[in-house]
Amino acid sequence: MERKRIRDFGIVPGRLETGKRNKITDVPGVKVGHCTVKTEENHTGITVIVPGADNAFAQKYTAAAYVHNGFGKSAGLVQVEELGTLETPIALTNTLNVGKVWDAMVDIVVEQCEQDGLEPMSINPVVGECNDSRINQIQKRVVGADEVRQAFASASEEFEEGDVGAGAGTICYGLKGGIGSASRVIRIGEKEYTIGVLVQSNFGATEDFVLNGESVGAKILDWKQEKDDMAASEEDKGSIMSILATDLPLTSRQLRRILRRTGVGIARTGGYTGHGSGEVMIGFTTANRIPSGAEEELLQIQAIPEHVINRAFLAAAEAEQEAILNSMTAAKRTRGRAGELYYSLSEYLEDQDSKQ
Amino acid sequence: MERKRIRDFGIVPGRLETGKRNKITDVPGVKVGHCTVKTEENHTGITVIVPGADNAFAQKYTAAAYVHNGFGKSAGLVQVEELGTLETPIALTNTLNVGKVWDAMVDIVVEQCEQDGLEPMSINPVVGECNDSRINQIQKRVVGADEVRQAFASASEEFEEGDVGAGAGTICYGLKGGIGSASRVIRIGEKEYTIGVLVQSNFGATEDFVLNGESVGAKILDWKQEKDDMAASEEDKGSIMSILATDLPLTSRQLRRILRRTGVGIARTGGYTGHGSGEVMIGFTTANRIPSGAEEELLQIQAIPEHVINRAFLAAAEAEQEAILNSMTAAKRTRGRAGELYYSLSEYLEDQDSKQ
Amino acid sequence: MERKRIRDFGIVPGRLETGKRNKITDVPGVKVGHCTVKTEENHTGITVIVPGADNAFAQKYTAAAYVHNGFGKSAGLVQVEELGTLETPIALTNTLNVGKVWDAMVDIVVEQCEQDGLEPMSINPVVGECNDSRINQIQKRVVGADEVRQAFASASEEFEEGDVGAGAGTICYGLKGGIGSASRVIRIGEKEYTIGVLVQSNFGATEDFVLNGESVGAKILDWKQEKDDMAASEEDKGSIMSILATDLPLTSRQLRRILRRTGVGIARTGGYTGHGSGEVMIGFTTANRIPSGAEEELLQIQAIPEHVINRAFLAAAEAEQEAILNSMTAAKRTRGRAGELYYSLSEYLEDQDSKQ
Amino acid sequence: MERKRIRDFGIVPGRLETGKRNKITDVPGVKVGHCTVKTEENHTGITVIVPGADNAFAQKYTAAAYVHNGFGKSAGLVQVEELGTLETPIALTNTLNVGKVWDAMVDIVVEQCEQDGLEPMSINPVVGECNDSRINQIQKRVVGADEVRQAFASASEEFEEGDVGAGAGTICYGLKGGIGSASRVIRIGEKEYTIGVLVQSNFGATEDFVLNGESVGAKILDWKQEKDDMAASEEDKGSIMSILATDLPLTSRQLRRILRRTGVGIARTGGYTGHGSGEVMIGFTTANRIPSGAEEELLQIQAIPEHVINRAFLAAAEAEQEAILNSMTAAKRTRGRAGELYYSLSEYLEDQDSKQ
Repeated sequence: MERKRIRDFGIVPGRLETGKRNKITDVPGVKVGHCTVKTEENHTGITVIVPGADNAFAQKYTAAAYVHNGFGKSAGLVQVEELGTLETPIALTNTLNVGKVWDAMVDIVVEQCEQDGLEPMSINPVVGECNDSRINQIQKRVVGADEVRQAFASASEEFEEGDVGAGAGTICYGLKGGIGSASRVIRIGEKEYTIGVLVQSNFGATEDFVLNGESVGAKILDWKQEKDDMAASEEDKGSIMSILATDLPLTSRQLRRILRRTGVGIARTGGYTGHGSGEVMIGFTTANRIPSGAEEELLQIQAIPEHVINRAFLAAAEAEQEAILNSMTAAKRTRGRAGELYYSLSEYLEDQDSKQ
Repeated sequence: MERKRIRDFGIVPGRLETGKRNKITDVPGVKVGHCTVKTEENHTGITVIVPGADNAFAQKYTAAAYVHNGFGKSAGLVQVEELGTLETPIALTNTLNVGKVWDAMVDIVVEQCEQDGLEPMSINPVVGECNDSRINQIQKRVVGADEVRQAFASASEEFEEGDVGAGAGTICYGLKGGIGSASRVIRIGEKEYTIGVLVQSNFGATEDFVLNGESVGAKILDWKQEKDDMAASEEDKGSIMSILATDLPLTSRQLRRILRRTGVGIARTGGYTGHGSGEVMIGFTTANRIPSGAEEELLQIQAIPEHVINRAFLAAAEAEQEAILNSMTAAKRTRGRAGELYYSLSEYLEDQDSKQ
Repeated sequence: MERKRIRDFGIVPGRLETGKRNKITDVPGVKVGHCTVKTEENHTGITVIVPGADNAFAQKYTAAAYVHNGFGKSAGLVQVEELGTLETPIALTNTLNVGKVWDAMVDIVVEQCEQDGLEPMSINPVVGECNDSRINQIQKRVVGADEVRQAFASASEEFEEGDVGAGAGTICYGLKGGIGSASRVIRIGEKEYTIGVLVQSNFGATEDFVLNGESVGAKILDWKQEKDDMAASEEDKGSIMSILATDLPLTSRQLRRILRRTGVGIARTGGYTGHGSGEVMIGFTTANRIPSGAEEELLQIQAIPEHVINRAFLAAAEAEQEAILNSMTAAKRTRGRAGELYYSLSEYLEDQDSKQ
Repeated sequence: MERKRIRDFGIVPGRLETGKRNKITDVPGVKVGHCTVKTEENHTGITVIVPGADNAFAQKYTAAAYVHNGFGKSAGLVQVEELGTLETPIALTNTLNVGKVWDAMVDIVVEQCEQDGLEPMSINPVVGECNDSRINQIQKRVVGADEVRQAFASASEEFEEGDVGAGAGTICYGLKGGIGSASRVIRIGEKEYTIGVLVQSNFGATEDFVLNGESVGAKILDWKQEKDDMAASEEDKGSIMSILATDLPLTSRQLRRILRRTGVGIARTGGYTGHGSGEVMIGFTTANRIPSGAEEELLQIQAIPEHVINRAFLAAAEAEQEAILNSMTAAKRTRGRAGELYYSLSEYLEDQDSKQ
């Protein structure tokens, strides 16, 4: 069965134009890779977002981070906020695997730097996480160095969404969550720029779910009565990680302002950022690379004039909303550790279509 | 004509129970007063939120502030964030009147303290603002000491919403905005607590407006074709001030977390926090008063356990959403300085009802 | 009697080279003006820092703010932090005068904009303050529109330090404080840049005072025994405002990092940022002006590579330290409202010299 | 040779009374453990700060974090800041070992929870770091699960300072740095409270070093001429981690304010928080434990009245200053990877004494 996207059901979130793939990889140079671990006990994995083909450590990316709700264990945010730069790819995984993935990322950066004749003594891996313990035996921490390498090896402009990689074990609004992505294209002056978002969705109570404006939570709770073993509705907890990429010329301050608007995309799906839902946004632009060298020359930075930033705000909100919905339609039905079932949003939508 | 509220149209935002008046003044002790200035050139005013009957300077309120988008001139936030206390009532007015209102607040606090035998040398007036320059000749700064005193003199548990006080000249989603309020009741253990919100709404583009889940922006733009002089849709700019009051026992940190969720209420009305829309939230609790004296005794503070805070989060989001809608239904049609008309949301809703 | 500076006593804080005047006005374009109010009851005033000759509103300055201890009433910080720009000169005054000065600044900006064909509807005056109530009857708020205009009219590259302008009534380490300034020159690549600081000093307990490395607090307390009416040592309270100007090409993020290091300069004089000592830093660079227009063109920004920023860090720390000491040597002996005397640091140093 | 402390040389930083041991373990319940790795290639280790005997996960500590300069990889800060609680001990190690130590901490918490009948799915290990790559082959990451367990097993109220544990490979002001600690006792009302600090010192350029008020950097640079192989003076880089413990009843907000004043202690040793010197402060109080259970009962929190907080501010500044000096006197001469020698501050002080 092919993985569906929300537009396959005729649902179009927002009004802006999308990029070619409607994925974060519409931003030139960005690739995404997964490694999924599926065993009897474990349903989890890792997803990596690679900002470009060359060495991020040698030519750092202008970046920003924004913590919307800090109930989370993401690593690397402090330095991103202080220096406004990203010097490694970004990895997403399950909560208790942050340490192992962080450690594996160090090896990978060291190796890449050796090839480039650099010897990094200080590396800031950026690792985000969601808690997938309802589906995955999280204390096992099965994502190790091999899985991290496989994820990098698979990185591509085309990548799967849904219950793959770091999304293998996540739950969203009581249905199956996962990895989802979307993009928007905006125009400034004569030029087009792309804003792409990738989410690891793992938040929300069923009753709060809003599907493109319509509060469908109650309907889904009714629908579940007909279904076997369907998981009960839950409190809003579990987190969402949002990664934003763009080729828009920005300062770190501007990027941080844009990142904050992904929260609007979350709210558009009905969530209210529950206490236990760690919401962390990390963003980078492929414009304005920052050399790690020791030259004395001034940096030449380009930035949009602030008065046009609304276009990027709206793009971020829309792409976030659609990425969440895509994570839910692409995800396939998965059984939780207690035997309960997390259905796909696609199943609900198909049932609704067949009733009409 | 009576001022309408959104529930008068059968629209019920959210699922939690409201307080008796469904206003911020459902929080025991809280009063609200307005002074409205309406002249040929000016349509503006001041709204004051008085946290309790006694002297706030002598017994400070546990408080918090949260800047969602800092394109704004609100005064007093820095100290509220550092010390976690509020020592004056809160005033709302137009952008360029912040200085005059701030100065008038000093007089009022000094006078109240003289009656109580205190001599305050350092006072932190909290003043929020929206830019009402599309309707009001803002450079005139017509809100002076007299208007501030009138607002305080009128403070009451019953108060008008809509185009009154600091809401006289504001615009929301291309319709007339203003002051709006709502409240929610939550239960923790055996006890009920109230969370009330008051907004000064002055933000949003018509096309983005969402009315309880339905995207009605396009319909309103159509409807406007039938109307004379109706103002064009605008960019999302202009700001919203959100004041949250509660009797829930909280620390300043907890209150700040709750404040952040009012942003969800804004998003539920369709806004995406535009660049020019200063969004500032200020909150206080009437529990945990902090004496200004110099005693050596430890403070005894009560606080909710963090795991129940979701109830307050949802209450804040819902009350914010409803307060915005109430500000729009209660506001009456007003002419802008360029001759354009800002209609009331009630007019649109009544037209829709009469068509059915 | 001429006003002394700390170097007149052979004391040289730090090791970097100073600018020509060793004042904030060594940064090309920057001017400083005072208006001092001295009456029987009042000893206070206003000091304005004008970033350049042209209209700051039309061509905004890249700026940053940093709140080291937020027990203070400074206005305008929120927008500076969000947008990274300064659009008015900076004014310093006494705590309760912030409202009146803010209001007067609006008039001045409106007038200047009218001359330039602009009609500003939203203006963010930046006003800092210290509490001078031990010397000044602060509740009177004697700094009004006239005094603000006089301060601007007097703005010049040469300006007095000590008990003038906003420093007329301030106290520092139990001696007379006031306005002080210093500058440092740093080299990046082939080019020299200037970092200037101006402080309004009003903090510190005598016993904590450190004079260029030496703890002299106890000695000053002894010295005071010989002096009539000398004020008792006090708790560390009262605030210090620090304004930093530079022509170094920086982003707002970099500028904020530099601003934070002025706190090191404060610590070098012995202060530990007492609870009641509001410590607020505001900085701007004359490089990277930001047009307020609505063009679609990308901004071209220059910035130093981060690895050379230590030079600016050290310059900021040293200039801050020396500016504080200059504020104390330049200030003249002043009587407090309770009859107590605040001596000049110069008197202490001269007495020490004469003993040797 | 016995490890010396700064007071062994007759140098007394500050004026407040110390606790019995003048260490962080003067705070009742707090223990510190080390595991040091010394091989041909590696000179590094881990230091753990255990807040109390029972399970921190079950009864969380009120805590705060403060990032003074975010060029660092510390883990766990985001959640500490959001929730104001600490749920694990704190570990310090070298920069690239954060991942492995984080992972090992998960095991230890899981095991302890199993004994207590808890099954934690989400754990927030707090791990700080300094970059010891001038002495230690950091890319090897030799601190693994065994080393972490050994550190915990050795935790005690008595613990060594200097080049032990996470301090084995650090450098401070061009001399050997390491682990140092100090404490202060303050009185509020009738009761005494202790504030303890532990640092991992790895920052500062020799020329900037200030020893209890005296700028001795230049003297040490002279002294080095007589010494073989002594390391050259360096830029201020490398980081300092500061851990503060207290039994003072505080809210998280108050604790954060106190934490900020440890920066004053750093400045008192001459540092100006260089670009590359990640400065991170983490603090907890043993008062106000927060149960992790799901009861509906309100928490009863005690807090000091804000006006007495200066006592804690000064205590934090003094303890930080002395902890840094103790880290330097206790550390023994160590050879860097390039063959250069990092001397002990004790060697310098003994040479000075013998000359007199």
